[in-house]
Amino acid sequence: MQPFAFKLKHTDGAARLGELRTPHGLVETPAFMPVGTQGAVKALRHEDVERLGAQIILGNTYHLFLRPGDELIARRGGLHKFIGWDRPILTDSGGYQVFSLAARRVIKEDGARFQSHLDGSPRMLTPEAAVDIQARLGSDIAMVLDECLAYPATRDAAAESMHRSIRWARRSRDQLIRLRTSSAGAIVTNTGQAQFGIVQGGVFKDLRGESADATVALEFEGYAIGGLSVGEPIDMMYSVVGDTARRLPDDRPRYLMGTGTPGDLVECVARGIDMFDCVLPTRNARNGQLFTSEGRLNIKNARYAEDDRPLDERCSCYTCLHHSRAYLRHLYMAGEMTAGTLNTLHNLSYYLDTMKRIREAILFNAFEKFRLEFQRTADRLSLES
Amino acid sequence: MQPFAFKLKHTDGAARLGELRTPHGLVETPAFMPVGTQGAVKALRHEDVERLGAQIILGNTYHLFLRPGDELIARRGGLHKFIGWDRPILTDSGGYQVFSLAARRVIKEDGARFQSHLDGSPRMLTPEAAVDIQARLGSDIAMVLDECLAYPATRDAAAESMHRSIRWARRSRDQLIRLRTSSAGAIVTNTGQAQFGIVQGGVFKDLRGESADATVALEFEGYAIGGLSVGEPIDMMYSVVGDTARRLPDDRPRYLMGTGTPGDLVECVARGIDMFDCVLPTRNARNGQLFTSEGRLNIKNARYAEDDRPLDERCSCYTCLHHSRAYLRHLYMAGEMTAGTLNTLHNLSYYLDTMKRIREAILFNAFEKFRLEFQRTADRLSLES
Repeated sequence: MQPFAFKLKHTDGAARLGELRTPHGLVETPAFMPVGTQGAVKALRHEDVERLGAQIILGNTYHLFLRPGDELIARRGGLHKFIGWDRPILTDSGGYQVFSLAARRVIKEDGARFQSHLDGSPRMLTPEAAVDIQARLGSDIAMVLDECLAYPATRDAAAESMHRSIRWARRSRDQLIRLRTSSAGAIVTNTGQAQFGIVQGGVFKDLRGESADATVALEFEGYAIGGLSVGEPIDMMYSVVGDTARRLPDDRPRYLMGTGTPGDLVECVARGIDMFDCVLPTRNARNGQLFTSEGRLNIKNARYAEDDRPLDERCSCYTCLHHSRAYLRHLYMAGEMTAGTLNTLHNLSYYLDTMKRIREAILFNAFEKFRLEFQRTADRLSLES
Repeated sequence: MQPFAFKLKHTDGAARLGELRTPHGLVETPAFMPVGTQGAVKALRHEDVERLGAQIILGNTYHLFLRPGDELIARRGGLHKFIGWDRPILTDSGGYQVFSLAARRVIKEDGARFQSHLDGSPRMLTPEAAVDIQARLGSDIAMVLDECLAYPATRDAAAESMHRSIRWARRSRDQLIRLRTSSAGAIVTNTGQAQFGIVQGGVFKDLRGESADATVALEFEGYAIGGLSVGEPIDMMYSVVGDTARRLPDDRPRYLMGTGTPGDLVECVARGIDMFDCVLPTRNARNGQLFTSEGRLNIKNARYAEDDRPLDERCSCYTCLHHSRAYLRHLYMAGEMTAGTLNTLHNLSYYLDTMKRIREAILFNAFEKFRLEFQRTADRLSLES
């Protein structure tokens, strides 16, 4: 089995062209990971996601832990076999959903106690449990459990939370090393699984710096920046991303969690980020919000009722090759499931195509030019949205 | 443009192998038409429907008339262009939905007055209007407006309703001939559109006979049997189908409306039917009810939670080639849209594959053997469902 590895192939300014090698194949970076929360990218089937060019998807540990359960998935041979997807998968730790979805959560040093949002059953997620669950799932990249801080937070609250996340990161790393070096009774369905640490610290640069140094000292296979895109001004986010990325080792992948708009992807690649995930393209698609090279478009709008043009004349996705805005509006207004599928195909195509263009621009040392051109589009986007 | 034609190629007992030629291509019969009520087969996109081997789909005039409106569709160039499907389409007249979906309907000799189920707006559907609307839609096969009788009905009620349907059929035929011979102000987006009459008469054989003779006298391009599968015993339905089919001309296609289970398809082909439509495969799929060669299967059932087998080991659809019952159950229980898509792909594959096997059996004069074997499966089906 191919172990996990990251190769930095080329840089253009702070933008990086790289390659992740995982037990389930290669991922070219900068990469966007479509979100497949419960083992499926919503409204699509796997062949769609592959045809769109996605090389890796994200699964949500919280959801899979609660339903159908990590032990059931382990008995099926792990998440890849269970869902029938043989390319790379990254799983989050479940922490974010415990903070955003679960009921009656109590966070203590040991971990998070909460009630399932599905049936109210009492559950516990500790750093060690998050490692064990993801070992059963057998994703190619596992994330450590971190504490998610609400924005805005005081400096003291951010510091305290960040310090706890570092202690949890150490426990997570220790647990993974135990699993790697002994069977320890736990089920491991992917022996080549990598583990990423997560830098926290809110919008406080010194705290981010301290978190980055302490996390890097634990020698993870990659590093994520967490706790952003939670309501802070966009310039502040970009600034924290840039400062934090500079503190991370060149030879490890850098993953900005839960971000963002197409413009965010370009700006954060410019600051040294290699990996992204976000529900925006898929969720917005189901709500009729579409990304195009000429701006965002809300398909519900009456102006599209008799518009025979495709969503985006520069797009070559299935939806744009076969259907008009008028038809897509009709399907949406009529509540047809097919609307969700066609819109998701388009939005994901736009995101993945943007990543491909980013990688090409870096390869040809033309990223800054690409970025400036994209910003002009992004400005139009924000005017029209 | 290829005008409409039907060619009877081979018979095996009462079972018929034929070919419909339409302005949008060939349809091999016996044929099953997936239902694409609002211009899309629910949960699928057109490439799926094509890949499954469907040669014709059905659109519902009532729904399209109300939303987005037949005039809007005509301005887009007709239904084929609007929805981006270039194979044959049959549209019903809208009558059945007026009887089953609309509010405050009042049926008089002139036609049906009702309120839209969408917004309560007052609407009118007459035999002439149903012809005009379908002319705007430009389907390849249009159906006449008929009166739909509830089951059970008295002989007198069935007779009265059947006689009205014959008067409406005559008005419908006259209106289509007017449209064909003069532009008459109406928009016709498919000049090769065929029109089918509908035989009514409830479960009363003499009334069915009278209706068949009177309808055939109007010289439609094809004939449908309506008003069955509405609650009558199955043997009674088969008997009416057999008697009615025998009264219809050999050189015209015969369409049994709104039927049925896989067993019904086989039994009615044995009685001389060439065309079918039914929501059963698509609606049941979305409800987790799956048709397999070994019986029906309800994917919600806990027994499938750890079942690594495909839905049907003899099936080669995308779903069966790629996914286990355990995964499909998980997606269904988790409420993922992808469950609806994967289940619909399988059920429609089962139906269309059954039709293909029926056509092969007729071609090789082996239909009776096929039918007996299928009945044995069908018996198991009813035991397990």
